[in-house]
Amino acid sequence: MSSQPLRIVVIGGSAAGPKAAAKARRMDEHAEITLIQREPDLSMASCGFPYYVGGTFDDRNMLVCTPAGIVRDPAFYGKAKRIRALVRTEATEIDRVAKTVTYRDLPTGEQSTIPYDRLVIATGATPLRPSVPGIELDGVTTLHSMADADALRAVRDEKKATKAVVVGGGLIGFEVCEALRLAGIHTTVIEKTRQILPFLDPDLSKLVENHVRAHGPDIIVGNGVAELLGENGKLVGVKLENGTELPCEVAVIAVGVRPNIKLAQAAGIEIGSVGGIRVNPQMQTSDPNIYAVGDCVECTSLISGKAVRAPYGDLANLQGRVAGQNLVIEGSASFPGIIQTGICKIFDYAVGFTGLSAKDAGEAGFDDIETAIISGLDIPGYMSGKLLISKLVADRKTGRILGFQCIGPGDVSKRVAVVAMAIRGKLTVEDMVNADLPYAPPYSLAIDHVISSAQVMDNKLQGRMQGLSASEVKHRIDTGADCFILDTRSPQEFEETRLGIGETLIPLGALRDRFAELPQDKSKEIILYCRISLRGYEGAAILDAHGWHNVKVMEGGVVAWPYAKEK
Amino acid sequence: MSSQPLRIVVIGGSAAGPKAAAKARRMDEHAEITLIQREPDLSMASCGFPYYVGGTFDDRNMLVCTPAGIVRDPAFYGKAKRIRALVRTEATEIDRVAKTVTYRDLPTGEQSTIPYDRLVIATGATPLRPSVPGIELDGVTTLHSMADADALRAVRDEKKATKAVVVGGGLIGFEVCEALRLAGIHTTVIEKTRQILPFLDPDLSKLVENHVRAHGPDIIVGNGVAELLGENGKLVGVKLENGTELPCEVAVIAVGVRPNIKLAQAAGIEIGSVGGIRVNPQMQTSDPNIYAVGDCVECTSLISGKAVRAPYGDLANLQGRVAGQNLVIEGSASFPGIIQTGICKIFDYAVGFTGLSAKDAGEAGFDDIETAIISGLDIPGYMSGKLLISKLVADRKTGRILGFQCIGPGDVSKRVAVVAMAIRGKLTVEDMVNADLPYAPPYSLAIDHVISSAQVMDNKLQGRMQGLSASEVKHRIDTGADCFILDTRSPQEFEETRLGIGETLIPLGALRDRFAELPQDKSKEIILYCRISLRGYEGAAILDAHGWHNVKVMEGGVVAWPYAKEK
Ligand SMILES: Cc1cc2nc3c(=O)[nH]c(=O)nc-3n(C[C@H](O)[C@H](O)[C@H](O)COP(=O)(O)OP(=O)(O)OC[C@H]3O[C@@H](n4cnc5c(N)ncnc54)[C@H](O)[C@@H]3O)c2cc1C
Ligand SMILES: Cc1cc2nc3c(=O)[nH]c(=O)nc-3n(C[C@H](O)[C@H](O)[C@H](O)COP(=O)(O)OP(=O)(O)OC[C@H]3O[C@@H](n4cnc5c(N)ncnc54)[C@H](O)[C@@H]3O)c2cc1C
Ligand SMILES: CC(C)(COP(=O)(O)OP(=O)(O)OC[C@H]1O[C@@H](n2cnc3c(N)ncnc32)[C@H](O)[C@@H]1OP(=O)(O)O)[C@@H](O)C(=O)NCCC(=O)NCCS
Ligand SMILES: CC(C)(COP(=O)(O)OP(=O)(O)OC[C@H]1O[C@@H](n2cnc3c(N)ncnc32)[C@H](O)[C@@H]1OP(=O)(O)O)[C@@H](O)C(=O)NCCC(=O)NCCS
Ligand SMILES: [Ca+2]
Ligand SMILES: [Ca+2]
Repeated sequence: MSSQPLRIVVIGGSAAGPKAAAKARRMDEHAEITLIQREPDLSMASCGFPYYVGGTFDDRNMLVCTPAGIVRDPAFYGKAKRIRALVRTEATEIDRVAKTVTYRDLPTGEQSTIPYDRLVIATGATPLRPSVPGIELDGVTTLHSMADADALRAVRDEKKATKAVVVGGGLIGFEVCEALRLAGIHTTVIEKTRQILPFLDPDLSKLVENHVRAHGPDIIVGNGVAELLGENGKLVGVKLENGTELPCEVAVIAVGVRPNIKLAQAAGIEIGSVGGIRVNPQMQTSDPNIYAVGDCVECTSLISGKAVRAPYGDLANLQGRVAGQNLVIEGSASFPGIIQTGICKIFDYAVGFTGLSAKDAGEAGFDDIETAIISGLDIPGYMSGKLLISKLVADRKTGRILGFQCIGPGDVSKRVAVVAMAIRGKLTVEDMVNADLPYAPPYSLAIDHVISSAQVMDNKLQGRMQGLSASEVKHRIDTGADCFILDTRSPQEFEETRLGIGETLIPLGALRDRFAELPQDKSKEIILYCRISLRGYEGAAILDAHGWHNVKVMEGGVVAWPYAKEK
Repeated sequence: MSSQPLRIVVIGGSAAGPKAAAKARRMDEHAEITLIQREPDLSMASCGFPYYVGGTFDDRNMLVCTPAGIVRDPAFYGKAKRIRALVRTEATEIDRVAKTVTYRDLPTGEQSTIPYDRLVIATGATPLRPSVPGIELDGVTTLHSMADADALRAVRDEKKATKAVVVGGGLIGFEVCEALRLAGIHTTVIEKTRQILPFLDPDLSKLVENHVRAHGPDIIVGNGVAELLGENGKLVGVKLENGTELPCEVAVIAVGVRPNIKLAQAAGIEIGSVGGIRVNPQMQTSDPNIYAVGDCVECTSLISGKAVRAPYGDLANLQGRVAGQNLVIEGSASFPGIIQTGICKIFDYAVGFTGLSAKDAGEAGFDDIETAIISGLDIPGYMSGKLLISKLVADRKTGRILGFQCIGPGDVSKRVAVVAMAIRGKLTVEDMVNADLPYAPPYSLAIDHVISSAQVMDNKLQGRMQGLSASEVKHRIDTGADCFILDTRSPQEFEETRLGIGETLIPLGALRDRFAELPQDKSKEIILYCRISLRGYEGAAILDAHGWHNVKVMEGGVVAWPYAKEK
């Protein structure tokens, strides 16, 4: 230990900054650690804001307290962590030559300068705001800061607002949408691009859309906001690019975030190719005494090797810990990179993803991928299993798993976490086909959904199943393509619900006896499905073996059909 | 395709056999497939028996039907799978030279012989029964066959039995115990060895014991059954080795299973070193035309490379699929091996494991392991997170993760599945420390429990935390060892519950101001803990840095303390 205590300064006091500071403290009890935070609160669980706004809990302190119930205020930081936390304090300049940070006490405006041996930049990100007229109206907000959370929670508690618009159909947009709905406010989500939830491929995204609508909110896609309409400075409506006007008292902007890099940039620290601070695996910036962590940095994708932005709370914490360790022992810890794993709750659905979507895989340069959409239960029917609908993406040549998306009322989070680990371990479809997972009826099927997904993918890779997505089938119908559509469910299931796309019903068990009802032209395209397309797949194997040679399975079956049904 | 259809015979009609047959059918529509099953039912979800017995559902058919609700009887097999299923039919001999199987129709006693090109042995396992007097009494049963399930369900429905004994404290023993408890029957579980649930290390096993007792049932360990006591051929009690007599009307024997290898053995097929049929990764026996799958085989551990028995329903299905594929295209699929992953529900706890326990690791020849016990929540407190208590096992030299056990009311199954995949991918602690998992408050903490576990392990491997298990601490107390015990929780927490083992309370936040209350002899052992020992660990880092050099953390904290507490 040196005789002079190490001087550590951390800028940003929400997730990544405090984590770095706390870890540095555990690594070096004698260091002088100062945390500079612009906002009045510290250690805010931003990810919990939607649940506070939506009334899952009512005590605001729960967003800023330890598991033992102590609020993480400057007094706590002083006592429990021996970290000097300055709140309502903005760092305004980094002088890399003098190794100092200049900061301003916001209430008084007083400026000070503090020297550092090691500095951490954890300034986070700022929500983007479309530059449209009316963006400054009262009633227009984001959900990013604690102040935003307080304001939106007040909207709930006041019970006055009746209509809201959420601009942006991403994770946070839909969390906000649900929270507003739970506050009894009718909400419309506006998404400029053609689909909601950009990390999903369109097939699954459309199913989530339906789910949201079934819970009340409206969704408008392919239409941006043109103007926010006000009266006396107050929001009264939103005008879309196509001219539609939606009256509302509240508009929440959730169109993404941009890394806060100004301080770093001004100090001449290198910015990366996708707009975040560039760091090495030790979370070190281009200045070896300066680390950067959290939403303000860019990460490396472990799948594509490319620079990517990944503004997630878990990563902020992991990166903070790595930096905290390196602050004290340089090079002692590394953050290897990310695979883009996330999840959110949208009413009764969980919506999760890990790795690359088909779309992303193409962009990342994987030009020979296979995908499979699979429906199934999370646990057995006799244990009241719930539905999961997934899409698995794999590299054809190597069999390597590249990505997985999963949605539904079933236990999505487990399946996404499992595939995330599989991707982390660079496992192939073949490895996953025979994974040894914990099986008991309260927790999984004998063949868990993720293994089933790999088995279906295996079948596709081996050419034992030819798949079509619901949208490909829909396109055939819409364009009047010449194909024979076969529903292999039972008459009873057909009576309860059916697509009505010109299908013929032949239950799987009767198929071998009813070949006469199938096209005589054995090269005609036949498309099979059932509820989840398991029986569809079995039927396809039968037809294949009997000489039909253009047999396809509509992947995911009836439950993954996102379009209107006959009944 | 050959002009003569391939003749496939499968012996055993529960899980592995039907899976092999069904997969073979999808691989070859023209094969002649015959399934020979001794019992009257086919495709029984044995793993669901405890839930049927315990009243989770009442329709027996749910145990033998497809997700679409069709009972998998011979008619179903004939129609949907074109598989001839013979029930109440016992295979009595395999003639490997003639390539025939002889079988007997059990109702008529009629013998027949059927030729095969490829044969699958899926005869499962038989429950062990201790050879004690009274084992044949009315009221003594196992829970293995559908008939057993029917009989135990009848016990529930008749509402006459009031007391039961379960012999054997393994997975199935406790599932049965819970089912009987739910039937309103007071139940005692008897375990001959010193601990229940042999796949857990003693620390966690003891916590599960407490949990079971809190729900009513008794547990007696270290005491075997000496005799089953009867009156007029009916069970009236159980006498233990130590002489204790427990009155009861029902006794369920659940002391493990033994592979059914007789048919194979008689045919000269090789048996492996741990008593199951030996198979290669293609699930082929020593006779290349004969495959074996499920509970009757032995597997290879992917961790130790050794032969092990793993009688689990998921593996039976996976192996069946591999064999089914190879029956038609030899060598086209492999089953790589297992890592011993399992789970069961015991009242409000899930109890899961993957890989090696500390005990197993030693036996498998890993002589330099590190373990860490970690308590924590599954999701944030503000989302009503529930407790998880885990033990991670790693190899010291390589950092490779060897095993993980997890118990508690929290979402155990996800964590075990995630670590199972990590072990499958041969990941190290370092890899897991920075895993990118799906984080959102309804599903995990920002640093998920499995990552936290890896971080704690990392700290131990780096020498940043010295741990003691609760049992090591208890031993010190019982032997009057000279140590200073420090509880770092808040006074309020201390008031609510405390161990009462001579501890001193100094809340973490006050620790730096109260060094005077600590031992002056800085080499004295100091043991810290808190609720989960997170603050205990932080306290230990502080003391370490201030010169105390024999500072330990009681891993898992108060919630992992399995012994009596003062309050
Ligand atoms: C509503 C919402 C829901 C979310 N849900 C999830 C989720 O479910 N899962 C997930 O993984 N992620 C989620 N996130 C993202 C997650 O919260 C962020 O990734 C995480 O907070 C980033 O942490 P950070 O410390 O890098 O940045 P921030 O949390 O943005 O903190 C940066 C802090 O730095 C301060 N600061 C900035 N500049 C200065 C300066 N010059 N001087 C002093 N202080 C400064 C700011 O005041 C701010 O408090 C969610 C975010 C929001 C807003
Ligand atoms: C109560 C209970 C709970 C369980 N819970 C779980 C759990 O939660 N998770 C888990 O992974 N596993 C669990 N298991 C284990 C799982 O059920 C077995 O691993 C699985 O059933 C093995 O399948 P199998 O086909 O190899 O053997 P079996 O299911 O034993 O089937 C073998 C079949 O072969 C027939 N047979 C045997 N010999 C002959 C012959 N000579 N001729 C004709 N037929 C023959 C038998 O009648 C039997 O039906 C549980 C088991 C039980 C009993
Ligand atoms: C909490 C915060 C201040 C970081 O402080 P911290 O002291 O590192 O707190 P944690 O509770 O995460 O971890 C403390 C330590 O205990 C360890 N630990 C956790 N459980 C333990 C257990 N049962 N036994 C022993 N040690 C344990 C951890 O490994 C960690 O130590 P390490 O980093 O040295 O390995 C910072 O992350 C923060 O402000 N978070 C709130 C905001 C946030 O995360 N927002 C984004 C998501 S909503
Ligand atoms: C069910 C049983 C008869 C096997 O029959 P099976 O036809 O293989 O049935 P499954 O439903 O498991 O799978 C059918 C096929 O559909 C595929 N599939 C599953 N979901 C699908 C979907 N959504 N779309 C397309 N295909 C799908 C599977 O991959 C499998 O095909 P493959 O093996 O060729 O890859 C046999 O496992 C059994 O008897 N089980 C009950 C008893 C049991 O398992 N007990 C132990 C645990 S309690
Ligand atoms: Ca993540
Ligand atoms: Ca398993």
